[in-house]
Amino acid sequence: MSSERPAVAVVGLGLIGGSLALRLSQSGYPVTAYDTDRLTREEATAAGLDCAVSLPGLLKAVPDGGIVVLSVPLPVLVDLLPVTAEHTATSVTVTDTASVKSPVRAAAVAAGLASRFVGAHPMAGTTDSGFGNADPTMLDAARWVVALEQDTDVRRWLQVAALITSIDGTVAPATSVAHDQAVAWISHLPHVLAEALAAGAPSELALGLAAGSFRDATRVALTRPELVAAMLTGNADAVGHSLDVLIAALQEARSGIGNGGVGSLIADGYAVRSDWPRSADRLVPMTIDIAAADAVQQLLVLGAAGGYVVSIERGQLTGLTSPGSQPQ
Amino acid sequence: MSSERPAVAVVGLGLIGGSLALRLSQSGYPVTAYDTDRLTREEATAAGLDCAVSLPGLLKAVPDGGIVVLSVPLPVLVDLLPVTAEHTATSVTVTDTASVKSPVRAAAVAAGLASRFVGAHPMAGTTDSGFGNADPTMLDAARWVVALEQDTDVRRWLQVAALITSIDGTVAPATSVAHDQAVAWISHLPHVLAEALAAGAPSELALGLAAGSFRDATRVALTRPELVAAMLTGNADAVGHSLDVLIAALQEARSGIGNGGVGSLIADGYAVRSDWPRSADRLVPMTIDIAAADAVQQLLVLGAAGGYVVSIERGQLTGLTSPGSQPQ
Repeated sequence: MSSERPAVAVVGLGLIGGSLALRLSQSGYPVTAYDTDRLTREEATAAGLDCAVSLPGLLKAVPDGGIVVLSVPLPVLVDLLPVTAEHTATSVTVTDTASVKSPVRAAAVAAGLASRFVGAHPMAGTTDSGFGNADPTMLDAARWVVALEQDTDVRRWLQVAALITSIDGTVAPATSVAHDQAVAWISHLPHVLAEALAAGAPSELALGLAAGSFRDATRVALTRPELVAAMLTGNADAVGHSLDVLIAALQEARSGIGNGGVGSLIADGYAVRSDWPRSADRLVPMTIDIAAADAVQQLLVLGAAGGYVVSIERGQLTGLTSPGSQPQ
Repeated sequence: MSSERPAVAVVGLGLIGGSLALRLSQSGYPVTAYDTDRLTREEATAAGLDCAVSLPGLLKAVPDGGIVVLSVPLPVLVDLLPVTAEHTATSVTVTDTASVKSPVRAAAVAAGLASRFVGAHPMAGTTDSGFGNADPTMLDAARWVVALEQDTDVRRWLQVAALITSIDGTVAPATSVAHDQAVAWISHLPHVLAEALAAGAPSELALGLAAGSFRDATRVALTRPELVAAMLTGNADAVGHSLDVLIAALQEARSGIGNGGVGSLIADGYAVRSDWPRSADRLVPMTIDIAAADAVQQLLVLGAAGGYVVSIERGQLTGLTSPGSQPQ
C-alpha cells in the first residue's frame, strides 16, 4: 500500500467512472477497466484504456495494495460488492462513487468487505451520462466526500483520499450518515423541488411566461428520471427527513405570506446564499498528523467545519478549514 | 385613438419606465415623461426625453387618444391612479408595468378608471434598477402580459398591445387572475423555495459540498430582500395558493419516497421541463378578427394556450399559438 501510484481497476465506464479512468491513466496510474457493455469497452479501448473482457478476470488481476473503484448505479453496486470480495486479494482496497453512502456501507459490510471498503462520492457530474460524455478534466477541482467512520482503517482511507488529491480533487471527511444528510439537502431536495415545480406548472400561459427563475429552479428536472428515482430511493431516509424540515418551513412561510411574516425567512436565505460559496481565501491551512491516535476524530472535525483535505504526501496531510474551527 | 403613433406619457423613470420611454421615443412616438426625483428628470432630459416638471401638468397635457404608462412600485401606483383619473381626459388610456395585476385592477376600478385602464406587465428586468441602468434595448423581444377581462374595452386593449408589438414586444392576453397565478408559480414560488433551501442548509459540511444543484436552486435568494418581500406581499393570494399546491405535492412525494411512489412526479417533471421552453418554430401563426363579437374570448383562448400576439396592424391581429389550440 506504500506505492505512490497503486494499480487502479475501474468497474463501470459511465460518465464518472469513464472520466476517472481517463484522468488516472493520464496521471500515470496503472489503470485497468471494465464495463458490462461491449460497445462501451470498445469505446474505452479506443480512448486508450486497458479494458478487461471479464469482471472476475479484472478483479483477480488487481495486484496487492491496489484499488478497485466501483462506479456503477446503486442497485448494481450492491450486487458487485460480493463479487469484488470474492475475486480480490484482502490487501486490495475497495471504493465506489455512488451518491449515497450509508446503504453502500451496509452492503459492503454484508459482503464481508468491512475492513477494506472506503466509500467515496465526487460532487460532480452533469445531466449527461455514458462514456461518450466522459472527460478526463470533468473531475478537476471536484470536491469528494470520502466516508470515514470510527472503525475505518485509516491507512485505507488515506490511500483513497490520496488517489483523489493526486488528481487535483479535494476531500471532505464525513461519516456516511452526515454525508447522506448533507447531500439530501443540497442535492436531492433540489431535485424533488425541481420536479414538483415543473410538474405543477399551472397552465400553458405560465410556461409561456416562465423565464430565468423557473429555468434555474427546474434545471435538474432534466436529469434522466431513472437516475433521479435511484438517487431519491437510495437516500430515502435522509431525503424524507429533509422534506419534513422543508415542508415545515414552507408551511410557516405560507401562514406568514399575507401579513409580512416571511421577512425572517427571506433575510436568512439572503444571508446564507450571499455568503456562499465560501471563498477559499477565507480558509486557513491546517495539518493533521495521520499517525495520531485521534486522526479519525481530527479528520471528522475538519469535515464538519466545512473544511477539506487538499494534499496527502509522504505522511503529511494538509487541509483548509475555516478560522476558529481548527482542532487544537 | 386611431393614430398609429399616439402620444405616450411615462410616469416613473426607473429601469422599466426609463427603458420604455427611451425606446418609444426612438420609435417615433411623441413621448413625455415624469419622475418625482429631480435628478432622475435631469438625467432623462440629458438622454433626450421631454420631461414635465409636475405630474398634473404632464397628465393634463396628454392629448385625446393618448396613453399614460404608470411605471412605479405597487404602493405608489395605488396612489397615482386617482391622480391620473383626475387629470386626464376620458379618451386617454391608462396602463402600468407592475408585476401583479389583480390588485392594480382593483385600485384602478376604485379610482374610477375601470373603463379605460388596461394593465400590463413586461416579463423582463434585471437585478439592477434606476434610470442609470435604463436601456432602450432592454425590452426588445420581451414577452408582456396585457390584462384582458370580459368587460375590458377591446379598442383600448388593442391600443396598448399595439404599442408593445410596435417596439418588438410580444403580448400574451390573460385575465389579471390568470396572470397572477401564473407568475406566482413560475416566479414568486421559486423565490420562496430558494430562500427556504438556503436558510435551511443543515451544516457547514452541506454548504461545503453544495454545487450546481444548490447554486441554481438558490440563485434568486441573492435578490435584494426588500424586493422579494414586496413581490410576495403584492401577490399574496396567488402565492399562498401556489404554496398550498406545492406543499401538497411535496407531502405526497414524502409519503412515497421510501416505496418508489415518487416515480410519477419525476416522470411528470421531466416531461414538462424537457418540453420547455416551447420553441417558436413549433408554433403556428393565427389571426383574430378584432371586430368580432367574441374577440375577447378568442384572445383569452390564445393566451391560455401559451400563445401570444406578434403584430397588430391596420385592424389585423397576428399571433403565434400551439398547433391544435387554434380557436375555430
